[in-house]
Amino acid sequence: MQLGVEAKLTLDCGVELGPVPMAYCTYGTLNAERSNAVLVCHALTMDQYVADTHPITGKPGWWEDIVGPGKPLDTNRFFVICSNVLGGCLGTLGPTETNPATGKPYALDFPVITIADMVRAQVMLIDHLGIDQLFCVIGGSMGAMQVLEWASRYKDRVFSAIPIAGAARHTAQNIAFHEVGRQAIMADPDWHGGDYASHGVAPKRGLSVARMTAHITYLSEAALHQKFGRNLQDREMPSFGFDADFQVESYLRHQGSTFVDRFDANSYLYITRAMDYFDLAAEHGGSLPQAFDGTETRFCIISFTSDWLFPTSENRAIVHALNAVAANVSFVEIESDQGHDAFLLDVPALRNVLSGFINGCAEHHGLGRS
Amino acid sequence: MQLGVEAKLTLDCGVELGPVPMAYCTYGTLNAERSNAVLVCHALTMDQYVADTHPITGKPGWWEDIVGPGKPLDTNRFFVICSNVLGGCLGTLGPTETNPATGKPYALDFPVITIADMVRAQVMLIDHLGIDQLFCVIGGSMGAMQVLEWASRYKDRVFSAIPIAGAARHTAQNIAFHEVGRQAIMADPDWHGGDYASHGVAPKRGLSVARMTAHITYLSEAALHQKFGRNLQDREMPSFGFDADFQVESYLRHQGSTFVDRFDANSYLYITRAMDYFDLAAEHGGSLPQAFDGTETRFCIISFTSDWLFPTSENRAIVHALNAVAANVSFVEIESDQGHDAFLLDVPALRNVLSGFINGCAEHHGLGRS
Repeated sequence: MQLGVEAKLTLDCGVELGPVPMAYCTYGTLNAERSNAVLVCHALTMDQYVADTHPITGKPGWWEDIVGPGKPLDTNRFFVICSNVLGGCLGTLGPTETNPATGKPYALDFPVITIADMVRAQVMLIDHLGIDQLFCVIGGSMGAMQVLEWASRYKDRVFSAIPIAGAARHTAQNIAFHEVGRQAIMADPDWHGGDYASHGVAPKRGLSVARMTAHITYLSEAALHQKFGRNLQDREMPSFGFDADFQVESYLRHQGSTFVDRFDANSYLYITRAMDYFDLAAEHGGSLPQAFDGTETRFCIISFTSDWLFPTSENRAIVHALNAVAANVSFVEIESDQGHDAFLLDVPALRNVLSGFINGCAEHHGLGRS
Repeated sequence: MQLGVEAKLTLDCGVELGPVPMAYCTYGTLNAERSNAVLVCHALTMDQYVADTHPITGKPGWWEDIVGPGKPLDTNRFFVICSNVLGGCLGTLGPTETNPATGKPYALDFPVITIADMVRAQVMLIDHLGIDQLFCVIGGSMGAMQVLEWASRYKDRVFSAIPIAGAARHTAQNIAFHEVGRQAIMADPDWHGGDYASHGVAPKRGLSVARMTAHITYLSEAALHQKFGRNLQDREMPSFGFDADFQVESYLRHQGSTFVDRFDANSYLYITRAMDYFDLAAEHGGSLPQAFDGTETRFCIISFTSDWLFPTSENRAIVHALNAVAANVSFVEIESDQGHDAFLLDVPALRNVLSGFINGCAEHHGLGRS
């Protein structure tokens, strides 16, 4: 579904943007009290197709283990919303959309956005849907950043918040990996300073390299070892060449080449930049506890043992800040050897933690027991 | 110094190569007994200029903390040799050198080489220098791979061996990062299928991205955090653009852009490939202890706590294999937050460990005490 939000959005960079088309999916039914709405915030390369077949890849939704009838986010009980983020490339306003001033895609004329800007756009959508308070805001990775932003800026509009595999700031190493990806895209001559649409091309090679690099960071060393080890791809002996001799090479090349069919290179630049800029403490005078001062939201912070991109230490820093303001917070570090991607995979412990926390919150919120 | 090794080299891939120019530096004086020679094996992007000013960058040698008068590898006592590896780009035979068959640079006609091939070329050089047994073979990272290869294939020619921050095999994650770098190079249109020299260009953008990616893996998250954190580069506020806002971005771009002036892209492909192929156990029927069976070499294995590229676990696997054949082995894990690069930095504990071990070995080898 696509909605044109009529109101103007004033971004952190000072630019006024609007009207803002927002593409989103919903699942389940909003109850009469409008008290059962759940906002799912998606990660960098995900989209609004949480539990729908992806229109380009034809693959199942990215969180069908979590969202659906009888699932932790039970669509028989909850009204689940997910919108493509501002800056995205699947229907919400972003660099691929037409700039009314020129009649051409925005490309690099699109203003640089922040996580706070993404959330501002979501707030407009939630307003439009007539929802005062969200029962839950939930998301992993960049989704967790949005959850934290919601919980700190719109405290009375969030009953419960579940940031998964997240961080209150992007670290130097995170920024470094993103910068490599951006440099790979911008080094591709087919990028044309961002104006590739006018040239009828796309910087597929650069975007593919960016995706390959990022993909390594989403997996743990153990996961790579278990999945591939040093196994060769369809051969008994190394080829003594630069073909994909090893399975891990073949896998990465596949990840890169399929990604470019479903994702836009400029969107990748803008969204990675938004993540790099994210620093919740800095937004609140340098104090992370200050970001949550006075909160009555119920928090559940979740990390994974083998996640080295958004490690437990970063998640624990959020817990400490919440503790410092006596917030209602649960913290679970889930044992997993899948790395950062664990939040997207079928991890039974994740499902159990989510079910338990969400059911408890639902009861407190007058939504009954499951 | 450059030497043309007249003998032919039969490579693992079956190709016969030769004559083989070998570029090398030496420090100190070979004693009358020819018993005080130390071979330093260099890492991926290093070279023979261990303690000499680099001819292109004008920077000091890469291991001047370790090699020199009064240093752990005391050039008043030892004759230190370091040769540019086979496949390199600073004088030893590699893809930049002229292919006698065509009169043009080898480029991708250069055969794919292995760590064992690099060591075969070094053996020829050591033979030429009239040295039967090396007092010590030492090196970090890819240098450590060469040390292990020497110690397993030429047991009676190595009195002591010091592999630092190494591994007996390249892991799936290591291969993955190398593959991303290679893809970045090969995606650069200026690469021209490796034949860029004929076009008077070089794939600088691709090589720069490869270097940036690799450089992140050489540092620990803690080192990046301490060095840069989220500090901005020459500005008070983010620019809301794609300039290098953060110091870490500026630093990485600098690393990338300076690297391309001193290193060749095809060499980078060949040398990373050699590392990927390295699997010492596989060379010995799948048994790592078998690689060291019957060894009388004295080993000192060194790892660094924050090295996530060649972690302590990989180094410990070497120790376990040596223990299994009752070898003479010391193992030290040095506390450092510098990551993999610690072996190149001024780490006092590294100097102390090296001095202690080397002096002990020298005494046992009849070279006296320092």
